[in-house]
Amino acid sequence: MSDQHDRLSTDRRTLMTGVAAAAAAGSFLTPGVAGASAADLAAIRKAVEADKADAIKRLQEWIALPTVAAEGLNVNEGPAYMAKIAKEAGFQTAEIIPTDGVDGVFATLDVGAKRWIGVYFMYDVKQYDPKEWSSPPLEGKLVEKAPFGTVMVGRGATNSKGGQITLLNALRAMRAVGKKPPVNIALICEGEEEIASPHFRQIATHPKVLPVLQKCEGIYVPGPAQDRTTGEVSFTLGAKGPVELQLTVDGSKTGIGPKADIHSSEKGRIDSPIWRLVQALATLTTPDGNTPTLDGFMDKVRPLTPREKELIAQLAKKTNEEAIKQAYGNKAWINNMTYEQSIERLLSQPTINIQGLIGGYTGPGGKTVLPSKAEAKLEIRMVPNQTYAETVKQVRAHLDKRGFQDVAVNISGGYDPTETAEDASVVQAALAAYKKMGIPVTLSPRSAGSWPGSLFTQPPVSKPAIHYGVGFGSGAHAPDEFIVIDSANPKVAGYVDATMAQAQFLYALAEMK
Amino acid sequence: MSDQHDRLSTDRRTLMTGVAAAAAAGSFLTPGVAGASAADLAAIRKAVEADKADAIKRLQEWIALPTVAAEGLNVNEGPAYMAKIAKEAGFQTAEIIPTDGVDGVFATLDVGAKRWIGVYFMYDVKQYDPKEWSSPPLEGKLVEKAPFGTVMVGRGATNSKGGQITLLNALRAMRAVGKKPPVNIALICEGEEEIASPHFRQIATHPKVLPVLQKCEGIYVPGPAQDRTTGEVSFTLGAKGPVELQLTVDGSKTGIGPKADIHSSEKGRIDSPIWRLVQALATLTTPDGNTPTLDGFMDKVRPLTPREKELIAQLAKKTNEEAIKQAYGNKAWINNMTYEQSIERLLSQPTINIQGLIGGYTGPGGKTVLPSKAEAKLEIRMVPNQTYAETVKQVRAHLDKRGFQDVAVNISGGYDPTETAEDASVVQAALAAYKKMGIPVTLSPRSAGSWPGSLFTQPPVSKPAIHYGVGFGSGAHAPDEFIVIDSANPKVAGYVDATMAQAQFLYALAEMK
Repeated sequence: MSDQHDRLSTDRRTLMTGVAAAAAAGSFLTPGVAGASAADLAAIRKAVEADKADAIKRLQEWIALPTVAAEGLNVNEGPAYMAKIAKEAGFQTAEIIPTDGVDGVFATLDVGAKRWIGVYFMYDVKQYDPKEWSSPPLEGKLVEKAPFGTVMVGRGATNSKGGQITLLNALRAMRAVGKKPPVNIALICEGEEEIASPHFRQIATHPKVLPVLQKCEGIYVPGPAQDRTTGEVSFTLGAKGPVELQLTVDGSKTGIGPKADIHSSEKGRIDSPIWRLVQALATLTTPDGNTPTLDGFMDKVRPLTPREKELIAQLAKKTNEEAIKQAYGNKAWINNMTYEQSIERLLSQPTINIQGLIGGYTGPGGKTVLPSKAEAKLEIRMVPNQTYAETVKQVRAHLDKRGFQDVAVNISGGYDPTETAEDASVVQAALAAYKKMGIPVTLSPRSAGSWPGSLFTQPPVSKPAIHYGVGFGSGAHAPDEFIVIDSANPKVAGYVDATMAQAQFLYALAEMK
Repeated sequence: MSDQHDRLSTDRRTLMTGVAAAAAAGSFLTPGVAGASAADLAAIRKAVEADKADAIKRLQEWIALPTVAAEGLNVNEGPAYMAKIAKEAGFQTAEIIPTDGVDGVFATLDVGAKRWIGVYFMYDVKQYDPKEWSSPPLEGKLVEKAPFGTVMVGRGATNSKGGQITLLNALRAMRAVGKKPPVNIALICEGEEEIASPHFRQIATHPKVLPVLQKCEGIYVPGPAQDRTTGEVSFTLGAKGPVELQLTVDGSKTGIGPKADIHSSEKGRIDSPIWRLVQALATLTTPDGNTPTLDGFMDKVRPLTPREKELIAQLAKKTNEEAIKQAYGNKAWINNMTYEQSIERLLSQPTINIQGLIGGYTGPGGKTVLPSKAEAKLEIRMVPNQTYAETVKQVRAHLDKRGFQDVAVNISGGYDPTETAEDASVVQAALAAYKKMGIPVTLSPRSAGSWPGSLFTQPPVSKPAIHYGVGFGSGAHAPDEFIVIDSANPKVAGYVDATMAQAQFLYALAEMK
């Protein structure tokens, strides 16, 4: 069920699978809704509908320009394009913010409103292999896909261009009908989210960016967040923080082991870099591979609060264990936990995951070599009160203490876990907007995935940070990624309703007490 | 120094590097040598020389037809060709011996002599990647290569077609001058040596093969066995026995872990096949990766005899530690052993080696997946009195005992260690032949590499088995494999002398008391 995930929201959709919906069926954002002028919203909706065909073309055009930081793909074209479409959507300024990696973009739309809201975009996408796709990943083809309806298939469709463009298009629609947005908007964009945002701090703390973010009520991430069946939104109040790292052992650099692959019989007297990697890795978890044993790492894990446990119990009741297991194919949760325990563990415990392993001969059959090098790609996911800086130090110290000085550690990205208070104004505005649209919401204390919200929630920005949006997409980080354009399920928003939901949030923010 | 190895002779060349030679320089097999008629040998030599250009073409033609069992390459063409060239060399019978894998070949040349000698050929070769070669691996180009002289570069040049063809060509030369070979010859060939001979027993015990082998003095493997500098031959009295195996963990088959790659955040509650493989592997050795901890495995290791220790002490004195370290690039031997200890450990201790590791994402940077499967390619090398059958059982039992029932074990080949007594007639004949040619020999109790000699030395064949030959080749299992054709070093045989040395051995066998 890799199609149920993106880094921004591990749970909000999967946990909902198969839950009976309490939400009323029907169109979203009915004219007459409290708050914003119903006439205004109706006019905006007409403009969104009128623009729909062009909006689809614009999304296709954006999908056709993938930025993949891991591969250095379109790392200059991506930010330029991002700035262009922000300006076209009405942002008065849209500047490239240079970093030591892939550049960011910062755009502002100051309409003289009382409040500012910050918006976070990632313009980069995950790697893709066209051979694995049923429709070309860069074409953004519209296809009929049961039971969803008409969907757009493309890399970035749901993670995250499809959701992001709904905000841009909501702003276009307001302009089309002569309406100013009800809040001022600061748009901060990066192109390295998929490699764990190694330079995002440089963007968020840039002298042109930081003072504006500090004026904001908070920062939000637009995107489709509904369950595919029930339309329910799982609203997370935080996220784990990742450390992405690669461990490599290379005899040619250390002299421990051979400098190139040699005949395997020499294992009798020569160290094996690949064995040293395996043995070093093995010290990082319990023998079942499930609980980190990195020295000192578990000490800072903050236990769940009673309120968090309460939210988790609600999650367990409202979601369908069997549907998730069937999708993943796992017979049981680790340690044969109950479903509620599995959610508790998922959301409260840090992890060390091996993303990939490579070393030596990997072709068919065997080959009698003693390889000279090997690599493991890992990511650690931390929970409060663990920190990126401390974890990075712990890894090196742990390996050194056990004599694995020859295991090189390359940290390729990461940031702290994120937490946002339930009573923050942006949280309450989002809940109010969902309520106005009749969309059921389940609060989750934390996403098991990660997003660099801590750059916002921690000093110097120190603002709440959330996700908000309706609609459904799937296949983030997988082939055939898609987003629903015309929804066959009345409980799930298609493109027009998802775009209107962005307008609704801006109005809800403006109306907060 | 991967270029110094083939499975048949780990040590005989590498250990000699840099040793000052005691051998007299000059041509081998001077007319007038004791034993065979000097006139006969001179006539044979002339025929070998006259045939040389054609012989090179025949070797090139054989190299152009690689059989690679691991890839299923030319598994039918290979044995047919092997039978053809045996017949062309004078064997009266040459039959394909069917197996459950790649077929073998058995050929006989019965000249009515008193004695039979068995000869083992492998007609298969190691995999190769043309991109890594400076000369096409299947062309067998002649190139000038300092300090060796004129060499032929090609896959199989030294491992093992180049050496094997010298015996065939010696027989051709005898026929050309009207001489019968002085012994009867039984030629047994397989095409799966590079995957650890999984079906060789079927060939050796075939009803057409076994009775003939049982008539032989012993079995020998022809091949270039001289040190590149000193011309010294390291003569091994046995070899380790391998078990080639792959460990795989696949959630789609076990339900422990996901059935396909999923978002890595789920590590919080779902088992990781890749972690389970790492943790299972880690139980197989000490934390430094050097000593097997497979349950019960070390119990059967036979300690070295005083004579074996004596031979090892001689080896250590006669060989150059620094030259070997420089070639391999290792700063030290494991556990900071002395050089003599390193040879003792190499020849007396069993090993568990990881040939390759693969699982999950292996591209640039990272990718946030929890992979569904992973594989480790291993080979275990056993010493007397460990056995293939017992080791195979121990691996499964060891993993099961630790709860790793989900780690699948695929045994892809292997056989028992080999031992041959120093006083066997074939050993003494080989030593006599080397002595007549003025070639210094160092006896080694065992090769750290492996060859399926136990199929000969154990019941039902129960015959001594050795390697014999002169010349120099390198790059077995590596790019730019080559064999010396015209030697620039007078102490090292080129093609003609290597071919004559085969004739010399047959005469020495015939002359044994």
